[in-house]
Amino acid sequence: MQMTFVIFLELLPAKNGEEPTMQFLLEVVEILTSYIRKTFDRSTKVLDFHHPHQLLEGIEGFNLELSDQPESLEQILVDCRDTLKYGVRTGHPRFFNQLSTGLDIVGLAGEWLTSTANTNMFTYEIAPVFVLMEQLTLKKMREIVGWPDGEGDGIFSPGGAISNMYSVMIARYKFFPEVKTKGMAAAPRLVLFTSEHSHYSIKKASAALGFGTENLILLNTDERGRVIPDDLEAKVIEAKRKGYVPLFVTATAGTTVYGAFDPINEIADICEKYNMWLHVDGAWGGGLLMSRKHRHKLNGVERANSVTWNPHKMMGVPLQCSAILVRERVSMCLFHFPGLLQGCNSMCAGYLFQPDKQYDVTYDTGDKAIQCGRHVDIFKFWLMWKAKGTVGFEQHIDKCLDLSAYLYNKIKNREGFKMVAPKIKAMMMESGTTMVGYQPQGDKVNFFRMVISNPAATRSDIDFLVEEIERLGHDL
Amino acid sequence: MQMTFVIFLELLPAKNGEEPTMQFLLEVVEILTSYIRKTFDRSTKVLDFHHPHQLLEGIEGFNLELSDQPESLEQILVDCRDTLKYGVRTGHPRFFNQLSTGLDIVGLAGEWLTSTANTNMFTYEIAPVFVLMEQLTLKKMREIVGWPDGEGDGIFSPGGAISNMYSVMIARYKFFPEVKTKGMAAAPRLVLFTSEHSHYSIKKASAALGFGTENLILLNTDERGRVIPDDLEAKVIEAKRKGYVPLFVTATAGTTVYGAFDPINEIADICEKYNMWLHVDGAWGGGLLMSRKHRHKLNGVERANSVTWNPHKMMGVPLQCSAILVRERVSMCLFHFPGLLQGCNSMCAGYLFQPDKQYDVTYDTGDKAIQCGRHVDIFKFWLMWKAKGTVGFEQHIDKCLDLSAYLYNKIKNREGFKMVAPKIKAMMMESGTTMVGYQPQGDKVNFFRMVISNPAATRSDIDFLVEEIERLGHDL
Repeated sequence: MQMTFVIFLELLPAKNGEEPTMQFLLEVVEILTSYIRKTFDRSTKVLDFHHPHQLLEGIEGFNLELSDQPESLEQILVDCRDTLKYGVRTGHPRFFNQLSTGLDIVGLAGEWLTSTANTNMFTYEIAPVFVLMEQLTLKKMREIVGWPDGEGDGIFSPGGAISNMYSVMIARYKFFPEVKTKGMAAAPRLVLFTSEHSHYSIKKASAALGFGTENLILLNTDERGRVIPDDLEAKVIEAKRKGYVPLFVTATAGTTVYGAFDPINEIADICEKYNMWLHVDGAWGGGLLMSRKHRHKLNGVERANSVTWNPHKMMGVPLQCSAILVRERVSMCLFHFPGLLQGCNSMCAGYLFQPDKQYDVTYDTGDKAIQCGRHVDIFKFWLMWKAKGTVGFEQHIDKCLDLSAYLYNKIKNREGFKMVAPKIKAMMMESGTTMVGYQPQGDKVNFFRMVISNPAATRSDIDFLVEEIERLGHDL
Repeated sequence: MQMTFVIFLELLPAKNGEEPTMQFLLEVVEILTSYIRKTFDRSTKVLDFHHPHQLLEGIEGFNLELSDQPESLEQILVDCRDTLKYGVRTGHPRFFNQLSTGLDIVGLAGEWLTSTANTNMFTYEIAPVFVLMEQLTLKKMREIVGWPDGEGDGIFSPGGAISNMYSVMIARYKFFPEVKTKGMAAAPRLVLFTSEHSHYSIKKASAALGFGTENLILLNTDERGRVIPDDLEAKVIEAKRKGYVPLFVTATAGTTVYGAFDPINEIADICEKYNMWLHVDGAWGGGLLMSRKHRHKLNGVERANSVTWNPHKMMGVPLQCSAILVRERVSMCLFHFPGLLQGCNSMCAGYLFQPDKQYDVTYDTGDKAIQCGRHVDIFKFWLMWKAKGTVGFEQHIDKCLDLSAYLYNKIKNREGFKMVAPKIKAMMMESGTTMVGYQPQGDKVNFFRMVISNPAATRSDIDFLVEEIERLGHDL
């Protein structure tokens, strides 16, 4: 066994992709394809739950500890199998636990290619194809948002929280560009507004960027979880009366818990009236823009200054894939390729962004980002779009919304659906048959939060879930 | 063709992983393995360069535009081939252009498994194995840094720039926790210090987090690019005299351009004397900690309060893989699992981090992060560590440093090595035979920045590079 490794170390990476290493890779592929087949098989458990201490103790010989000496490739294959065995099948048709579910095979193939290419988004030079794909796809997304000719700016970021953080940074740079050089001391007391039901990343951004969470003002919502525009206006007036400067408003398109859509048009009216930046957090609900039938839920989104939209959520793209889209692309700085994002974040590092390169360096987008190296998140999404077409994404979204209506009708008059969620959830995880999240909200006690975005889920899976909740609840 | 797709759309994701989709995936694997074999073949070009407009015009039928209607799976396979064809082979033994190079097959297999598992790091619940692997690996890295029993805190983040940003945030939270709630207005004028040669992400962080780039004070370096400790102390004293509060110092372990190592021990003395946070940016040079022979370059690193270390650079782990390590893990807040990172970033979102779950929720690490969803960056690294052992990483690092000494000796007395870098670089990209970056620094004109971290590179590749530069320069 040890010998195998020694040869491996000598050969890897091999001059011509020598057989032992390529054979190893193909064996991993066999493990993965077998895993994928089972994931779509409803008789397979969603998870085989173990407590942390059980896994740490080395269950059935699965040793998580790292060691000084190498393991054989045979053992590495066993490690791969064990890793999958004790994990959670997020692509399983009965996994409803998170906003990111499903396992699209074209998207997966795209991700495998991405990791094989193993490159970085900062310059055209080392990622020519991916940089162009990102540019074209962002333009397409901006067209779908409704901005004329898809004009504007944007970037793919490592998740919706970072995309939301970008929106706050760009708004600040737009109104108070001197903060970039002089810090928050150069600005008056700035306040931000967001729904009491909005995602916690807005709060994280206000802490991280130096605004302070107390300067993030939470807006009241109606009985369906939507921001009440009058409450926003009242709070803006109140802030101004105190001498604060209202800077930024988030409208959430698809709240994390209720899936509520804030009334964007009414909020946009108020933002225009008081000269505030409007950000639409469509991390979850942005996918509805692909559906002619359902996009009305985001009416007014084209009036936003920026939009977060995560294809890795409702559109079923593998993790991670999140875009921040910006309407404005004006010259705010003296650098060679202007735009708000660029102006906000650029530092013109000489070792990456040489203006004397032999190609058109406006394609070197790295200096827009708060990151330096940036993972290639675009390819899997581009490839899925090619394979499905815009109409394919539309069909998927429409199907999810149909299923969601089906579930609503099924349980609305059903008796006994006010139960102790944590206990049933625990039993569900032990049995491993299905998986759904729960939580409290405001004065409401724990309830299940049902997420429907998995392309593999059907009505029979909804039926199963409801029956499973009843069955487990019955034993309490 | 169109029919193929229609069937595909119906079948995908298929109940039992139906054959057409799995067959497609296996065909992609064939494309990828053939690409990998060629990558290690020195007779293959590093890149086949085209200008942006050429690719956008649809060279040889490669159409980057997205459309409404789906493409056939056959066409998707062609798209995959074209994407690789017009890309850059970052794993090629003669690619020296970036700090991230190489293509480790075990790491690649790990990344393929990661995307198949398609899960998220925020909770133990949906990533039990990966969460534990992260915990164990971070502990091991802290041990290697030299903190007793590997105690402390940390997280994997989407790249070194974000890791560095974390360090500034945590330092601010440690000394001025009220900034989290009240914003930068609650703190005095805070100043940060870093080398004039440090990575631009420190500047990006000071802009983003509300300090302002003017409050980042650049330190002079000696002839080898290392911070001069006396200059730091003089600037700290000067800042205090003006009434500013010195908060944070970065020592760079491996600068981006010269690969210089700042004298950590001397800088640590000054940090202790003036009660400042010491961050070591070892994004590039952290890998040297794996080598008993070379780790002395980071002497004093154990005195740092935080360390950035990117296994995706010198250790050859596929992108992205960056860790921020924190020495202190003390109770700074009232939440159920304390620690500086947690205190700094936690918002206690009820829908994810329910304290009434049935398992030990101290493993739900998501609330530490500025992200919500977080990509699984740990598995490929863990798997490589298993396969190589600590000793394998050590061998790799030692080999890189040997090669680097070889190059140094080879060119130090060679005539004619003061040339016009951009022109040669352009010719090099056109010919596609090798790839190395260039840049100016301070008053120095453009020069080549030679990166050695690719495990596939040998002395013959160094010889080739030097000869190629001479050959291309000769034609000027």
